[in-house]
Amino acid sequence: MSYSDRLQKMLRTSKVKEGSKVYVTTSKGEFEGTMMPHHEFSDPDVVVLKLKSGYNIGITVDEKTKISVISEPPVHERKETKVQEKKGLPNIVLIGTGGTIASYVDYRTGAVHPAMSAADMVNAVPEIRDIANISANVLFSIFSENMDVGHWQELAKAVEKALNDNADAVIIPHGTDTMGYTAAALSFMLTNLSKPVVLVGAQRSSDRPSSDAYSNLLAAARFCASGTPGVYVVMHNDLNDNSFAVHIGSRVRKMHTSRRDAFKSINVQPFAIIDEAGSIAFSELKEGSKNKVKATTKMESKVVLLQYYPGMDVNVFKDIFMNSKGIVISGSGLGHVNSSMIPLVKGSVDNGAVIVMTSQCLNGSTNMNVYNTGRDLMTAGVISVNDMLPETAYVKLMWALANTKNADEAKELMKRSIAGEMGERRCVDE
Amino acid sequence: MSYSDRLQKMLRTSKVKEGSKVYVTTSKGEFEGTMMPHHEFSDPDVVVLKLKSGYNIGITVDEKTKISVISEPPVHERKETKVQEKKGLPNIVLIGTGGTIASYVDYRTGAVHPAMSAADMVNAVPEIRDIANISANVLFSIFSENMDVGHWQELAKAVEKALNDNADAVIIPHGTDTMGYTAAALSFMLTNLSKPVVLVGAQRSSDRPSSDAYSNLLAAARFCASGTPGVYVVMHNDLNDNSFAVHIGSRVRKMHTSRRDAFKSINVQPFAIIDEAGSIAFSELKEGSKNKVKATTKMESKVVLLQYYPGMDVNVFKDIFMNSKGIVISGSGLGHVNSSMIPLVKGSVDNGAVIVMTSQCLNGSTNMNVYNTGRDLMTAGVISVNDMLPETAYVKLMWALANTKNADEAKELMKRSIAGEMGERRCVDE
Repeated sequence: MSYSDRLQKMLRTSKVKEGSKVYVTTSKGEFEGTMMPHHEFSDPDVVVLKLKSGYNIGITVDEKTKISVISEPPVHERKETKVQEKKGLPNIVLIGTGGTIASYVDYRTGAVHPAMSAADMVNAVPEIRDIANISANVLFSIFSENMDVGHWQELAKAVEKALNDNADAVIIPHGTDTMGYTAAALSFMLTNLSKPVVLVGAQRSSDRPSSDAYSNLLAAARFCASGTPGVYVVMHNDLNDNSFAVHIGSRVRKMHTSRRDAFKSINVQPFAIIDEAGSIAFSELKEGSKNKVKATTKMESKVVLLQYYPGMDVNVFKDIFMNSKGIVISGSGLGHVNSSMIPLVKGSVDNGAVIVMTSQCLNGSTNMNVYNTGRDLMTAGVISVNDMLPETAYVKLMWALANTKNADEAKELMKRSIAGEMGERRCVDE
Repeated sequence: MSYSDRLQKMLRTSKVKEGSKVYVTTSKGEFEGTMMPHHEFSDPDVVVLKLKSGYNIGITVDEKTKISVISEPPVHERKETKVQEKKGLPNIVLIGTGGTIASYVDYRTGAVHPAMSAADMVNAVPEIRDIANISANVLFSIFSENMDVGHWQELAKAVEKALNDNADAVIIPHGTDTMGYTAAALSFMLTNLSKPVVLVGAQRSSDRPSSDAYSNLLAAARFCASGTPGVYVVMHNDLNDNSFAVHIGSRVRKMHTSRRDAFKSINVQPFAIIDEAGSIAFSELKEGSKNKVKATTKMESKVVLLQYYPGMDVNVFKDIFMNSKGIVISGSGLGHVNSSMIPLVKGSVDNGAVIVMTSQCLNGSTNMNVYNTGRDLMTAGVISVNDMLPETAYVKLMWALANTKNADEAKELMKRSIAGEMGERRCVDE
């Protein structure tokens, strides 16, 4: 829904733009503030002002309302600089996707917008030029909650191209909301990987003094210079600015809404820790493929991720179970659901679906041999994937179903670790 | 599906029971092992034997197959003891529900069964008799993945009765899989609580030397003796046997599939820590109501919990959104979903549903004011519940919808902390 015709005309006549500082006189009072964007769900006769106090108010505009402009919206300036390439340094290609790391806070609205160019980002961290020659381009400029399977595919293709051209590594600035999912997708899609592919994000936008954008970016570049092959996420390791964790792309999860050390390796140690000086402590060493990287991007879309909970109604989820080709259940404990769901699960498997059990505990491994419910689920055809994260299992199942001949092959692929996503089940008395 | 008539007859004639040690002769070879329970999905002509090696094998039984019994199944003995009440000690009522804490390992099958009586449990921890007079009864004997909303209601009524009779506290041994959900349900259902209600579980069954059942039970009794009102979960605080955490019932989540310290307080400190000697360090003090406890157990069943993930298909979830009265979304980051879902969300709200946003990060608070997607969701009518756990929000929403007059009242109730389930949103630069 947009503004009413009458209000649109009034705003046009008064030359009021989004971001203008305005003065509004109504029968209920007078208000001074900044014009906020109109929202599709707002009433067509309401304008929203951000007051000096920071609060937003909606004002119903009628015939008697008067709006006048105090000042025009401020203009954001950008500068681009040309940089000389240095010989002997690795070539890193930055593929921008958007997110907070590439964002600025709009101080009119207090909102965060993805708008910084990848080159801007690099230019803000001069030290990075001593580590590598960086070329930057923007593939998307979206917040990561809007990243979709199609974006993963396009991104994998762009990484494949960059690495098979002459990049020694790729850095992908990315929104943090779904960075773990994208990292998992690239982990499976990029086969024969012989070079580093590093996703990096920020929990504070780049223009804030407390931003973690540049320090994370610098740490990512340092890790890339090591040449270690694989897909990784590099983020703050703690609340200080002097320790950065390198997480395996298929083992990482956003575990806090706002902290700078939101990303955690689950069920494994971080792959490496980078200190402020740039020293890298690896937890393991890795050799890459000698071949060219290949992006295998086909994905089965009829896959769902469902968390089990008490009271989950079989009838409510029946259609989803019967119409999906793949279902990842985030079960309780060692990998359970209410026994009353087992006939539906079996029906879905008999219908050809692949059903994969993970645990909503996140930490630890599923083990469906200990209790009756687990064994019944296995008999019904559910497969268990040990300590694989539910989110990783979801991404992998889309990929496995699209890149194998049939459900049985997809199941076999699910049970085998192909990108470090799964360990052996350990029955330790922890 | 059960055994075929022919096989049933053969087993009857040969006096083979579940748990019998048997000798099976077939055309393919001879096998010695323990008869495992028949499974509803097994082939009707297959018997399953547990071999000496611990492996199970399925054997197809035809006309030529011979089965003979080597020995009868072992008998489990139980002893009950009468205990004298001690004056001056608080009266604790133990209400058994099943789960690993009340289980024994069936060494024939390696499986865990919920079978121990509540009295057995208490008798196994003689120290507990110095802390309180304990009376024990069994309400359910199920694994907690099979706990359902109806069980919560029955349990709340049983707790109400015990406390309004003459119990000073109630201890509820419970399976760990869904203990967090039950704790949340009791937190909302039990109003005017002036006494302790403590759920306690075990990650290792009671008859194993490494069991945490007795030490957790003893810690729970010690906490009960403090008289602190509220609903709590008491479990191991770490991997040692000398520190126990008391978690607020609405703030606790099972965060590991197998570790003894699987339960964690999320977004708050544990309410108290109990050491081996029984000293309790409280993180806060709490006063209870002077009134009688009341179990308010009505629950709205048309509520779902859904985790958002990239690729979540609007069409697949359309019916659920349009037919539910309450939806808790475990969104990404600060409380987001893909923008393409917003029209569906709005349609569902317009249809009368209450939609509550939580974060799949689990730690930290939602904040839907920072990014466009969050603001758009709020405009569509989604409400945010700060740092409330998705699971707690699901349980609370069922309760709020059933115990208020309309959706608006339920929304108001969701936004208010009534059982310690939610804190103020903090915008700290952590």
